[in-house]
Amino acid sequence: MKELSVNHLLGIKYVTEDDIQLIFETADHFKEVINRPIKKVPSLRDITIANLFFENSTRTRLSFELAEKRLSADVINFSAASSSVKKGETLIDTVNNILSMKVDMVVMRHPNPGAGVFLSKHVNASIVNAGDGAHEHPTQALLDAYSIREKLGDVAGKKVVIVGDILHSRVALSNIFALQKLGASVKVCGPKTLIPKYIESLNVSFEPNLRKALEWCDVANMLRVQNERMDISFFPSTREYTQQFGVNKKLLDSLNKEIVLMHPGPINRGVEITSDVADSKQAIILDQVQNGVAVRMAVLYLLASKIQHNED
Amino acid sequence: MKELSVNHLLGIKYVTEDDIQLIFETADHFKEVINRPIKKVPSLRDITIANLFFENSTRTRLSFELAEKRLSADVINFSAASSSVKKGETLIDTVNNILSMKVDMVVMRHPNPGAGVFLSKHVNASIVNAGDGAHEHPTQALLDAYSIREKLGDVAGKKVVIVGDILHSRVALSNIFALQKLGASVKVCGPKTLIPKYIESLNVSFEPNLRKALEWCDVANMLRVQNERMDISFFPSTREYTQQFGVNKKLLDSLNKEIVLMHPGPINRGVEITSDVADSKQAIILDQVQNGVAVRMAVLYLLASKIQHNED
Amino acid sequence: MKELSVNHLLGIKYVTEDDIQLIFETADHFKEVINRPIKKVPSLRDITIANLFFENSTRTRLSFELAEKRLSADVINFSAASSSVKKGETLIDTVNNILSMKVDMVVMRHPNPGAGVFLSKHVNASIVNAGDGAHEHPTQALLDAYSIREKLGDVAGKKVVIVGDILHSRVALSNIFALQKLGASVKVCGPKTLIPKYIESLNVSFEPNLRKALEWCDVANMLRVQNERMDISFFPSTREYTQQFGVNKKLLDSLNKEIVLMHPGPINRGVEITSDVADSKQAIILDQVQNGVAVRMAVLYLLASKIQHNED
Repeated sequence: MKELSVNHLLGIKYVTEDDIQLIFETADHFKEVINRPIKKVPSLRDITIANLFFENSTRTRLSFELAEKRLSADVINFSAASSSVKKGETLIDTVNNILSMKVDMVVMRHPNPGAGVFLSKHVNASIVNAGDGAHEHPTQALLDAYSIREKLGDVAGKKVVIVGDILHSRVALSNIFALQKLGASVKVCGPKTLIPKYIESLNVSFEPNLRKALEWCDVANMLRVQNERMDISFFPSTREYTQQFGVNKKLLDSLNKEIVLMHPGPINRGVEITSDVADSKQAIILDQVQNGVAVRMAVLYLLASKIQHNED
Repeated sequence: MKELSVNHLLGIKYVTEDDIQLIFETADHFKEVINRPIKKVPSLRDITIANLFFENSTRTRLSFELAEKRLSADVINFSAASSSVKKGETLIDTVNNILSMKVDMVVMRHPNPGAGVFLSKHVNASIVNAGDGAHEHPTQALLDAYSIREKLGDVAGKKVVIVGDILHSRVALSNIFALQKLGASVKVCGPKTLIPKYIESLNVSFEPNLRKALEWCDVANMLRVQNERMDISFFPSTREYTQQFGVNKKLLDSLNKEIVLMHPGPINRGVEITSDVADSKQAIILDQVQNGVAVRMAVLYLLASKIQHNED
Repeated sequence: MKELSVNHLLGIKYVTEDDIQLIFETADHFKEVINRPIKKVPSLRDITIANLFFENSTRTRLSFELAEKRLSADVINFSAASSSVKKGETLIDTVNNILSMKVDMVVMRHPNPGAGVFLSKHVNASIVNAGDGAHEHPTQALLDAYSIREKLGDVAGKKVVIVGDILHSRVALSNIFALQKLGASVKVCGPKTLIPKYIESLNVSFEPNLRKALEWCDVANMLRVQNERMDISFFPSTREYTQQFGVNKKLLDSLNKEIVLMHPGPINRGVEITSDVADSKQAIILDQVQNGVAVRMAVLYLLASKIQHNED
């Protein structure tokens, strides 16, 4: 049986193209499962998974929780709000305590970049990074690439533009790694102040003009404007953002081709994307959400089979 | 097999007397189930239910969650406190996202009247209204009417007075609809400032005097005084409320008949009802709670069988 | 079959040595279970357990929840933050409401000493005290004593010193009762202002000098410095606490014997215990956590079998 080259999913940076293809093939299987009347499989019946969310998250946590339950894993949820973290406990102590209760896998969201990598070196469990600060969000990138593959047949050779606040986005970084490993070309577009300086070192070019970016691409991934994070000094206003970097139907219709539109959610309707576009057939936003469960099932299943293999 | 006339339970206003009777017959069966040593049935093993609570609720959420688990459904919980709602996402987007993860039914509490009706027109899932602002709380009315039927043999022909803040109460409105559909007569009693002007258009008469209301009725449903919601200008003080609209043993003993007392909880002991009354045999408050699980199992079961039917 | 002498676990004060030994023998069995690849048993498949946490707790709640799930119980969680308690409902009403939903056992943490005892007299369910104010925390004491038995073969005849804030510690009081019932000798050590006056009436002597305490003992249980609870007037500063009552490697190495170190967690590394000590083989802190799940499984299993027996 094929298996992953890694024991954790800490970032797309650390996995191979073969790993990604194996996850996609496994997700194809689970996507069939969750579209059957009986949506569950007993695969991880003997596995206990702890979801450790040191930052709030609705959709990612729900998606992981559903993936876990449909694999029949035992699930425990832990959120920072009511936790020992507040009492000054270290991350390693918190996680080691949970692992001592015989937990096999940890799905972790943490505000600090590299928290998952750090943890994987110090504790004895399989770690899945569910977002570490502005660093990586690997399962989001996998479900995004999987959705492109589903819509366009393949990721290789496709041109993808990521639009928005690249600087603060873990989605952007993980997407760049995943798309490039799968043979796509990637550009970024957005306010210059929100484009990191290192972007060209990743072989990603910066296109400041949205129309030009859209004329070039097959797929546009519209990042969410995170009003709650955006420093006012980076960019004048949401209104100006929308004028320069928002996608609307008129702009799309003027392109003389049909591009695919993605969004990691939650959408600010009328800001980064208008409602008519978000609800059109060009947008695969809800497919992304559905594929998220299948892709996460695949990741958890493949990592769990490595644990069981290691124990033999 | 008999089935409901509706695909959602949005309010008692939208169901027929036959629907209510079918729910009661089904609840009779589930009430037996939950009183057996083995309290679970596998009926909804293939159904995933999302509990979306955009307002805090303990007892309603627990009751639904137990009903779902005893039907063997997969359950995911979502509360507004940690949600994308805060990030400005629309209700339809939030729910469509959750549904994309292959959720079959949504149990929703929402502060806005009509939120369930609105949602049912825009998303593809069965919706159960668990309270929408001051509008309806249909499962509460069903469990109340079911408890009257259990205690008195039938609802038809009975006289029921609802006492308290009718204006802000979703319990009152749903109870009025349910009791009238089942052939009971309904009066309301309470401070005049807390009685809605439209009450007479519902064929409900207003009785300002508690003693007269109790002399008339077979059943008194004592609403909770919601100190946290009550505008001070509506009514002078809790103390005066209790003097005029609180039920105590002396008052009950002076009636020359034994009436049934109900309360949707949580009780303010000594305010709307004294402790000796709340704990007496006349009060069926804990029966209401127990029946709540059986009635909710019936509602979920009957709606789920419509989903499965639709898919054939 | 042997059974417990009690129907609740309200405190170690109320159980016999035989009860404790029965819990330990049962926990031995469950410890094997949770170390197997298949960590679940169907024992409590027909039992519904409500976890009522009127105070925040991460590790105790997770430990109970895992114990319950590995016994295949149905679990509902209730936390005070979103509860009717805020609406002025009494504890008995809250619990009776939950019990009316056909809940068999209640695991409760409550800020008031004696809350569990009070409740057990007024409601019809088996109560497990998961910490009641500064009073008792019986499952913590059981897992502590179980861990000593595991490490040293027996508790009888051992010398145990409990170091720290004895005055505000439910862990200390339950440990004293458990250790004495099992035949160990107990001393306490810590700032004099944090030693309760009644300590000598419990046949526990106070040793103000940490070195002398360690020279005497076989096991030192280092309580957590609860900065969040500590009144500044009791003791000058955390730094002075550490100087006088913190354990470090140099101190341990100078003892000419190897003592066992325990900590109920969460650890303040560098305050009550240094990192090198916490991570050394002398410390059995993570064993305590692991044993916590097995001991709690044993307690729940034994109490549940009494419910089932009573019903016959």
